[in-house]
Amino acid sequence: MTKNNEKLSLEVAALTRKTKELVIPLMIVFEGVSASGKTRLSNELLLTLDAKYTNFIPTKSPTSEDLRYQFLQKYWNSLPSKGDINIYFRSWYAYFIEYQENKIKADFFSKYNHLKRQIHDFESMIKDDGYEIIKFYIEISEKKRKDHLKEMKENPLTSWKAQEYESAIDDEVYQKEMLQILKEAPEDEWKVIDYTEKSEALTTMYTHIIERLKHAIKLHKKKDKVVDGAFNQKFKSELLQKSIDKIVKKTYKSMITELQNRLKELQFALYERKIPLILVYEGMDAAGKGGNIKRVREKLDPTGYEVNAISAPTDVELNHHYLWRFAKDMPRSGHIEIFDRSWYGRVLVERIEGFATKEEWKRAYNEINQFEKMWTDEGAIVLKFFLTLDKDEQLKRFKEREQRPEKQWKITDEDWRNREKWDLYIEASHDMIKYTNTDNAPWLVVPADDKKTARIEVLKYIIKKCEEVLWGVKQY
Amino acid sequence: MTKNNEKLSLEVAALTRKTKELVIPLMIVFEGVSASGKTRLSNELLLTLDAKYTNFIPTKSPTSEDLRYQFLQKYWNSLPSKGDINIYFRSWYAYFIEYQENKIKADFFSKYNHLKRQIHDFESMIKDDGYEIIKFYIEISEKKRKDHLKEMKENPLTSWKAQEYESAIDDEVYQKEMLQILKEAPEDEWKVIDYTEKSEALTTMYTHIIERLKHAIKLHKKKDKVVDGAFNQKFKSELLQKSIDKIVKKTYKSMITELQNRLKELQFALYERKIPLILVYEGMDAAGKGGNIKRVREKLDPTGYEVNAISAPTDVELNHHYLWRFAKDMPRSGHIEIFDRSWYGRVLVERIEGFATKEEWKRAYNEINQFEKMWTDEGAIVLKFFLTLDKDEQLKRFKEREQRPEKQWKITDEDWRNREKWDLYIEASHDMIKYTNTDNAPWLVVPADDKKTARIEVLKYIIKKCEEVLWGVKQY
Repeated sequence: MTKNNEKLSLEVAALTRKTKELVIPLMIVFEGVSASGKTRLSNELLLTLDAKYTNFIPTKSPTSEDLRYQFLQKYWNSLPSKGDINIYFRSWYAYFIEYQENKIKADFFSKYNHLKRQIHDFESMIKDDGYEIIKFYIEISEKKRKDHLKEMKENPLTSWKAQEYESAIDDEVYQKEMLQILKEAPEDEWKVIDYTEKSEALTTMYTHIIERLKHAIKLHKKKDKVVDGAFNQKFKSELLQKSIDKIVKKTYKSMITELQNRLKELQFALYERKIPLILVYEGMDAAGKGGNIKRVREKLDPTGYEVNAISAPTDVELNHHYLWRFAKDMPRSGHIEIFDRSWYGRVLVERIEGFATKEEWKRAYNEINQFEKMWTDEGAIVLKFFLTLDKDEQLKRFKEREQRPEKQWKITDEDWRNREKWDLYIEASHDMIKYTNTDNAPWLVVPADDKKTARIEVLKYIIKKCEEVLWGVKQY
Repeated sequence: MTKNNEKLSLEVAALTRKTKELVIPLMIVFEGVSASGKTRLSNELLLTLDAKYTNFIPTKSPTSEDLRYQFLQKYWNSLPSKGDINIYFRSWYAYFIEYQENKIKADFFSKYNHLKRQIHDFESMIKDDGYEIIKFYIEISEKKRKDHLKEMKENPLTSWKAQEYESAIDDEVYQKEMLQILKEAPEDEWKVIDYTEKSEALTTMYTHIIERLKHAIKLHKKKDKVVDGAFNQKFKSELLQKSIDKIVKKTYKSMITELQNRLKELQFALYERKIPLILVYEGMDAAGKGGNIKRVREKLDPTGYEVNAISAPTDVELNHHYLWRFAKDMPRSGHIEIFDRSWYGRVLVERIEGFATKEEWKRAYNEINQFEKMWTDEGAIVLKFFLTLDKDEQLKRFKEREQRPEKQWKITDEDWRNREKWDLYIEASHDMIKYTNTDNAPWLVVPADDKKTARIEVLKYIIKKCEEVLWGVKQY
């Protein structure tokens, strides 16, 4: 390495120790046709960085299993922890080109225009959360490249890489698509590196990283964790006040059995058609979410669904983008995932308790809509239930829980504290429904003062929505 | 459900809240031929338990990707967190039967006698750590089973399950192997349930779980976190005192380049032969582990290796068996994984700082040997390096780090504190090498007062060992 590059690499090392300290996560992308010099550049960078917090992530061709998940799911899963560095040896861009081709072949859809928008949404969401994304596209003179390629293919020491890691993708297709992507991108978004001279390429790479890191460090300031006190516009939604026809006990038994059997049939139909179903439950404490979920799952085949009950985040989860821990658990095609509380915690408890700043939770409505759209875009059904309760009814249930020994574990001090913030929760819930009740992922507000009615309502709604998607049936 | 079973299921629910509180993790296994009633039993149990800490894990047939990993690796990865419950719908037993068959077909080895021992070791390791394993084998009268099977295959609602989750495995083969496993097992290890009458089967299941949980709760006592003070037998290993021929600077340059090029060739050869290589680094602070690792990886293809630098465990990691976080990162076939510090922390820092009890770290020597054997059994190369340093040389390096601005980040208060416990570390290191220097996973003690010599030593040793495995070459 030249003296100058050596100096630059030391500066990069020092700056990444600083970004580690400031918990700024970095994502560094290397794209380029085969034999363009990606390996050599990314390897030099890798050796410069501290292995304690650097991950090298080679993108492989999508497998048939990958195709059963949402397009970007594997990149959600491998997001760097706050302060860590991911080097992508080819990234979601190369993956996009292949994924699209394979999906079209598998004939799920005829085109995948939405994938580029998903990449845009994905990047902007994580950038907003303070992630720094640096993207390189490596070019090389055609003559040099051909020399490289020949040399690589003839040498068993390098030809294995071509088989394993360079995807099955055709260089021409790849290049054409990538150049289109570069053309469409804002001017500063990609840094093109000419690898014809290695030491110049290194200088360009290091210099660009240094510039971007300095910028990121300058912009960085500790986020102010101020609770938003501006809940002045007191509100009571009509939705939350809807009156209920209580269901007679006798009717309930036969109705629920019938609905559960129908849902079991639909589980099979969804599986066969490879449609994932995502059910989200939110609601007041003691509104009966658990019992409601139990009725939904009771007759389902346990190998085809999962319940994800959300508690306080672990420290590992706190060290990632807040959507990371949910993305990880999204179902593959044909499976059902039930969330008992969800990513909506961001605009409910995190808003109210000040765990998220005002700027963060306000931004979250849009992020959540984009997030859900990533799944519905690819055919998933997303249904969201908000179980509401009269304030007096909640009190009655709390007291009942305290008095009955087998139910005591269900009631904690936290429930009582949340109850004191009842009005704030009403306000936040109303905003949530107002801003995230989208066509592709609608909310159903379910009055749950009568638990049985609520269960019937939810089951009916799930069945109706699934039937609509499966067979275009519009009535139930 | 009968009144009695209802009562029993409530008791199971209550007991699992207790085990959650005591952070006892549970693993409940359901094995049985197809159509024996596993689904119905496990589903009833699932509905009984709290979704917040219960996972349902269906075992699928091993994929070709699975065959590239150590046999039990997927079960390591999905170990329940402390206090959580895993229900296995078929388990490592069914997986064993299929994995063995597939491996033999793929002709890696001709027989897999060691797999049963691995299951034994795996279970005993996690039991020792407080995991409760409950194993059910479900039987049913042949007449009833045939009725079930016919019904299942004719009904599209259930036949999909047969395709997806019931493995490709032949029922006769499965049954024969399982009955052999049951025969070989100690009497109380498996609970056989006759499913001919469903409500009786439920009663048997619940009663057995209740009995086992009560037993586990009774046995449970908070572990005493007492530091072992009995470091009386002061010791200085000759190995740690071995004198060193310093390497002349000129020779070093050409030697290291030659060795690195050779290692690059070997990376390819290992890849081609699908042999994973696991390198473990331990040693005194400032002994030069990082620089040594850098020389090993410098010329390697970055898509074929990973460095795993171990820091203090996260809370998620602390909530698992201590080997879990390492098992997760073990390489697949043909890949190289370098651990900068490792599972040996258990018998070094955890012993010295009292993070592990005396009973725990004493048990660890054997556990670690078993753990490493799981990988070497299947053809992995495991090499371990212990870099030693003279106490004065360490002081010199510490001071140098403090004085040079670009190296200051490398030295912390913790390093100085560790230095005060120098003798304890010597003692613990000696025990470690004594008890874990196995034929299949040997230690190389590397005097590192001269960094360059140490680098050459390590590279030579890796090359020699790889060549031995690859071609049976015994000299270098």
